[in-house]
Amino acid sequence: MDVNDYNMNQIKVIEIKKSVFAENEKDADALRSELKGKGVFLLNLMSAPGSGKTTTLIKTINLLKDKLRIAVMEADIDSDVDAVKIKEATGIQSIQLHTGGMCHLDAEMTRQGLDGLDLDGIDLVILENVGNLVCPAEFDTGSVCNAMILSVPEGHDKPLKYPLMFSVCDTVVINKIDVMPYFDFDLEKCTEYIHMRNPEARVIPVCAKTGEGVENFAQWIYEQVLNWKN
Amino acid sequence: MDVNDYNMNQIKVIEIKKSVFAENEKDADALRSELKGKGVFLLNLMSAPGSGKTTTLIKTINLLKDKLRIAVMEADIDSDVDAVKIKEATGIQSIQLHTGGMCHLDAEMTRQGLDGLDLDGIDLVILENVGNLVCPAEFDTGSVCNAMILSVPEGHDKPLKYPLMFSVCDTVVINKIDVMPYFDFDLEKCTEYIHMRNPEARVIPVCAKTGEGVENFAQWIYEQVLNWKN
Repeated sequence: MDVNDYNMNQIKVIEIKKSVFAENEKDADALRSELKGKGVFLLNLMSAPGSGKTTTLIKTINLLKDKLRIAVMEADIDSDVDAVKIKEATGIQSIQLHTGGMCHLDAEMTRQGLDGLDLDGIDLVILENVGNLVCPAEFDTGSVCNAMILSVPEGHDKPLKYPLMFSVCDTVVINKIDVMPYFDFDLEKCTEYIHMRNPEARVIPVCAKTGEGVENFAQWIYEQVLNWKN
Repeated sequence: MDVNDYNMNQIKVIEIKKSVFAENEKDADALRSELKGKGVFLLNLMSAPGSGKTTTLIKTINLLKDKLRIAVMEADIDSDVDAVKIKEATGIQSIQLHTGGMCHLDAEMTRQGLDGLDLDGIDLVILENVGNLVCPAEFDTGSVCNAMILSVPEGHDKPLKYPLMFSVCDTVVINKIDVMPYFDFDLEKCTEYIHMRNPEARVIPVCAKTGEGVENFAQWIYEQVLNWKN
C-alpha cells in the first residue's frame, strides 16, 4: 500500500469503477468461493439513508472485536465521514469506497473494495452498502448473508413498500427504539410485514445510541460466522 | 377510464413500463413544453424512505386545494398505501404508479403516469417520486421544479453524502422538527451543507404531523405556480 492511497483524514479511499461483468450472480458465487477459501466471512449491511448503520456497526464491532478479527468497507457516493467514524471509534481496519454516484454495489465492485483491504487473518468483513432500500437489494455482492437496518422514524410500513429488500435479508435490525414513544411505529405489525416478505427473517430491536439490544445483533453475527467456519 | 383500472381500494394503479427513450433530457424538455401548453405545473417531490413525504403532502394540499386544482401521482415499487392516504385525507385526484422494482422515474415514465390522470382544469400535479436519495436525482422528470424532504432522524450530514440530490432541488423541507430534542440534528450545520450543494436552495423546517411550518412550503409552491403561469 502506498501512502498516496490515503486522504487527509488518513482514510484509505477507493474509487469504485463500474463493473464489466454481465453476469453478476455467477461472479458473486465465484467471490463467495474465493472468500470461503480464505476463511473470510462477508456480511452485507443495507438500509435507507440515516437509519443508523454506522452507529450500529460501531457498537456491534466493539462487542465483537475481541472474538473476531474484523474489517469494514464503507460504501458511499461521496465523503469519508463513515470510515473516519468507524476507525476512530473501534480502531479496526476501515476503508471508504466511493461509488461515484452509483446507487449500489455488485460483486465486482465489492471485489474492488476487498482488494484494498489487508485480509490477512481477518475473519469477518462487513460491507456497509449505499444508503438505499431499492437498488442494493437487486445485486448479490458475494456476501454470505445480508442484514438490514430499519429505523423507527421510517415507519413500520416499509416492508410493504420495499418488498425485495426485506426478502433478501436474513436479519432486520429495528433501530432507534428509544424514540418509539414519539412515532406511530407498531413493532408487532412491522414484524408481521417483515415475515410476509421473509418468514425466516430474524427481527432484532436495538437502540444503537445507548447500545440497548445491540448484543443480540452481535451474537447473531458471531453465530453466523462460527457456523460458516465449521 | 375503465373501472378495471381501479384496485380494491378504489385507487387507480398504473404499472409503469421501462422507458425506451435514450435521451431523457430531450424528452423531459418536450414534456415540460407540453405541460406548459396545458397550463399544468409539475412538481417533483423526492426524499429517502420514511421521511414523511405523504404526510407533508396531505397537509400541504389541504392548505392549497382551495387556491389551486391539484392532482397527485404516488410512485412506489409496490403497494398503494400512499395514494389511498392522499385520496382519503384530501379528496383530490390521486393515482398510484407502480415502478415494478425500478428505483426512479424519468420523463417517459412520468408521462405514463400523467396519461392516467384527468388533467382537465388541473393547475398543479405533484409527483411523489420513489423513496430514494440516489437514483431519482439523476433523472429529469419534466418537472418545473424539484423539492425534497429531509427528516431530522436521518441526520444533518445527508447533503455531504448525497450531493446530487441536494444540488437538483430548489427547496429542502426539513421534516419532523418536533423530535429535534431527541436527535443530534444541527439545523444550522444542515443549512450550511445544503447551501454548499445549492446556494439558492430554500430551507423550510416543518413538522408535518402537527402542521407546524407547512404553510411556508405551501406558500412557496403557490408562488412557484403563479410566477410560472404569468
